[in-house]
Amino acid sequence: MSYHLNSWRDGAAKQAILDFVNRVSDKSSPDFVPPSERIAVFDNDGTLWSEQPFYFQGLFVLDRVRALCDKHPEWKTTQPFQAALERDWKTLAGFGEKGLLELVMATHGGMTTDEFTAVVNDWLATARHPQTRKPFTEMIYQPMLELLDYLRANDFKTFIVSGGGIEFIRTFSERVYGVPPEQVVGSSIITQYEVRDGKPTLARLSQLNFLDDREGKPVAINQHIGRRPIAAFGNSDGDFQMFEWVNGGSGAGFCMLLHHDDAEREFAYGKESAAGRLDRALAEAPDRGWTVISIKNDWRRVYVADTMQKNS
Amino acid sequence: MSYHLNSWRDGAAKQAILDFVNRVSDKSSPDFVPPSERIAVFDNDGTLWSEQPFYFQGLFVLDRVRALCDKHPEWKTTQPFQAALERDWKTLAGFGEKGLLELVMATHGGMTTDEFTAVVNDWLATARHPQTRKPFTEMIYQPMLELLDYLRANDFKTFIVSGGGIEFIRTFSERVYGVPPEQVVGSSIITQYEVRDGKPTLARLSQLNFLDDREGKPVAINQHIGRRPIAAFGNSDGDFQMFEWVNGGSGAGFCMLLHHDDAEREFAYGKESAAGRLDRALAEAPDRGWTVISIKNDWRRVYVADTMQKNS
Repeated sequence: MSYHLNSWRDGAAKQAILDFVNRVSDKSSPDFVPPSERIAVFDNDGTLWSEQPFYFQGLFVLDRVRALCDKHPEWKTTQPFQAALERDWKTLAGFGEKGLLELVMATHGGMTTDEFTAVVNDWLATARHPQTRKPFTEMIYQPMLELLDYLRANDFKTFIVSGGGIEFIRTFSERVYGVPPEQVVGSSIITQYEVRDGKPTLARLSQLNFLDDREGKPVAINQHIGRRPIAAFGNSDGDFQMFEWVNGGSGAGFCMLLHHDDAEREFAYGKESAAGRLDRALAEAPDRGWTVISIKNDWRRVYVADTMQKNS
Repeated sequence: MSYHLNSWRDGAAKQAILDFVNRVSDKSSPDFVPPSERIAVFDNDGTLWSEQPFYFQGLFVLDRVRALCDKHPEWKTTQPFQAALERDWKTLAGFGEKGLLELVMATHGGMTTDEFTAVVNDWLATARHPQTRKPFTEMIYQPMLELLDYLRANDFKTFIVSGGGIEFIRTFSERVYGVPPEQVVGSSIITQYEVRDGKPTLARLSQLNFLDDREGKPVAINQHIGRRPIAAFGNSDGDFQMFEWVNGGSGAGFCMLLHHDDAEREFAYGKESAAGRLDRALAEAPDRGWTVISIKNDWRRVYVADTMQKNS
């Protein structure tokens, strides 16, 4: 089985990846890192799959609000539920992160972990992106899949470290990214152990346990992985502290920032968008030695589905 | 490299292990489990190393109270610190889990994660067990090391799931048990990301984040591993719910309970001891299909140091 970066165009970004992997894998290099310490962390939304017009888990939340609204007639006249039901993006945006969290709590709790997994699997199998009409799991980036494979072929352990829900991502991470559930780190709600009619269950409560974003990412990495990654991949200021943490170790510390600048094949956004702001990360990248990936210039192909179609 | 269970005497316990591993590894068996799902979880205190006269991390706490008491003159006359300073076991026991937690918070917080790791490493290198005078990392069980190796040789991923501190155990788990930090699950205190003089750090606060015991174990397993283990090893009622959770899956679900019944080579305790109570687990083991390991009858050797001495 050969590993390649075929969907990457030759250029500074691809070369930086090859150089870094050579540097840490070569036993005679001063930057050599033993395999057990080769930990790479990947943000998910906007780094491994798209996040426009809204985080895909956010679209799941809106669909769940619709699915559950018969049981909650008050939602039709209560915010932020009313805006969610009406897909009133402007009003929704006005409620910010707090509003989104309220919707998440109302739709992600009140069931067991097994029930939640079934709901997510069902949604992933049937829901379609509002613009591309593709299943969401076909809007993952082919070049990033190749990068995951390439790192693993060089004895890296690849982790997802996402602001998204840990149990949401785990439903598809192994199948789609080759990242097993135990290597997914994310935001979570509180669960509670209960034996119901003799059957042990984990009940999901409508209470936030941990928000894995910004300053939360180094905290979650330490809690979950217990050692400092040597490589990090992200696309927004939500990844800033994760990059800073990866850079703060004694070794190499390789960081790459994905810049969404391809309106034709994907989306072009940044400063002007609520999702994926990266003002600070992009501004400080040169001084901090972070490599910027331009989707427009560095990627030959964008979505995995494109490859699948071309290969078929 | 050959893997063996040489320190296990032939008998029901050893046979149960061999049968289980054959059953889940044999592709033609109805109980076959794909390698990625072969997750085994191990309690630490009293399962991988001894826990008498007190949890070893508890002895670390008492040493830390002594080391820090000059900075806290009030401890000499304040409980539970006074009892800790005086090694007054009876009074300490009276404060129960709440008292122990108070001591943990006072001694485990107020420093960075790197500083804490250094303190633990120093303690492990110099401290000796009050009765055996051995370093604590020589009071790990040789038969359990062989079991860990044997499972890994059969494509199991081995995790520690302990009521002890996650960062405490991680300082020695890879070196001593071959379990990397990312496969250690335990109790934790809250950490906070801070950039100090340009250096990113994680500050340990004196606040409990999660207590990984009893009902907490299935919760932490789900949070950290994200799938149900197929094998669990423990020694007390603190492992009861973990066993129940492992048994509640669709597959095999193999559980073993270590019984400390060897006063001569290790310790004999159970119902009468504060550490490692196992009244309920032991009583229900036969009905639930849990295999009981008798240290006295099933183990040819106990501590790893014994083997090392014999081999040298």
